[in-house]
Amino acid sequence: MGKGSRTERELFKELWGRGFAVMRSPTSGGARSEPQPDILASDGYHIYGIEGKSTSKDAVYIPKKELAELIAFCDRFGCTPLVGLRFDRNEWRFLKPNEGKETEKSSKFAKSEVMKNGRTLDDL
Amino acid sequence: MGKGSRTERELFKELWGRGFAVMRSPTSGGARSEPQPDILASDGYHIYGIEGKSTSKDAVYIPKKELAELIAFCDRFGCTPLVGLRFDRNEWRFLKPNEGKETEKSSKFAKSEVMKNGRTLDDL
Repeated sequence: MGKGSRTERELFKELWGRGFAVMRSPTSGGARSEPQPDILASDGYHIYGIEGKSTSKDAVYIPKKELAELIAFCDRFGCTPLVGLRFDRNEWRFLKPNEGKETEKSSKFAKSEVMKNGRTLDDL
Repeated sequence: MGKGSRTERELFKELWGRGFAVMRSPTSGGARSEPQPDILASDGYHIYGIEGKSTSKDAVYIPKKELAELIAFCDRFGCTPLVGLRFDRNEWRFLKPNEGKETEKSSKFAKSEVMKNGRTLDDL
């Protein structure tokens, strides 16, 4: 979750306020022994597995391995995998794991692209 | 989760081994600010929200409030609420939240009843 629990709780509350039931993972990203997303949210119709990142930079690099694990978890669980990105002083945006630009070991999510193409909380 | 993380991890692994994707809650029972089950598990067909308890005694008392929160979470999420019980030297059994015997503030799940009527891991 990057900047950690404050931003994570904020996303939790935003989703809860929109009618989702939300479950948070005990640990984030690389620290987990079993693959699971940062957040699992469902309103009974849509189920999302979300890997969340917040940053003060202009791009976020997410290791391909982390994205692959998110997709694998969602395949098994039956949820839609999403990358949730929050650039400082901007609203959350959500993209599919494959919507980043691939580098050797990571996928790059650039702020300009994300803010243009990402889905908002209200789109979920 | 009562006896805590060792038993919880054990249940996690049993479910994972049966094809479920499993998400664990960061904190257990009463310590949570938002209602969420100890474990959320799905194989893409069945989604279970599980409140898990392990004990060396002959009965488990679960506060009605905890069961009501489990049911409320699952109503919102779209999962089947289950109480998971593990009596020492016995296998896990799973019951519906309303299958206990109501006392004033709790529901009592007695070992003899649970071992007779509860579903096994393979039944899930």
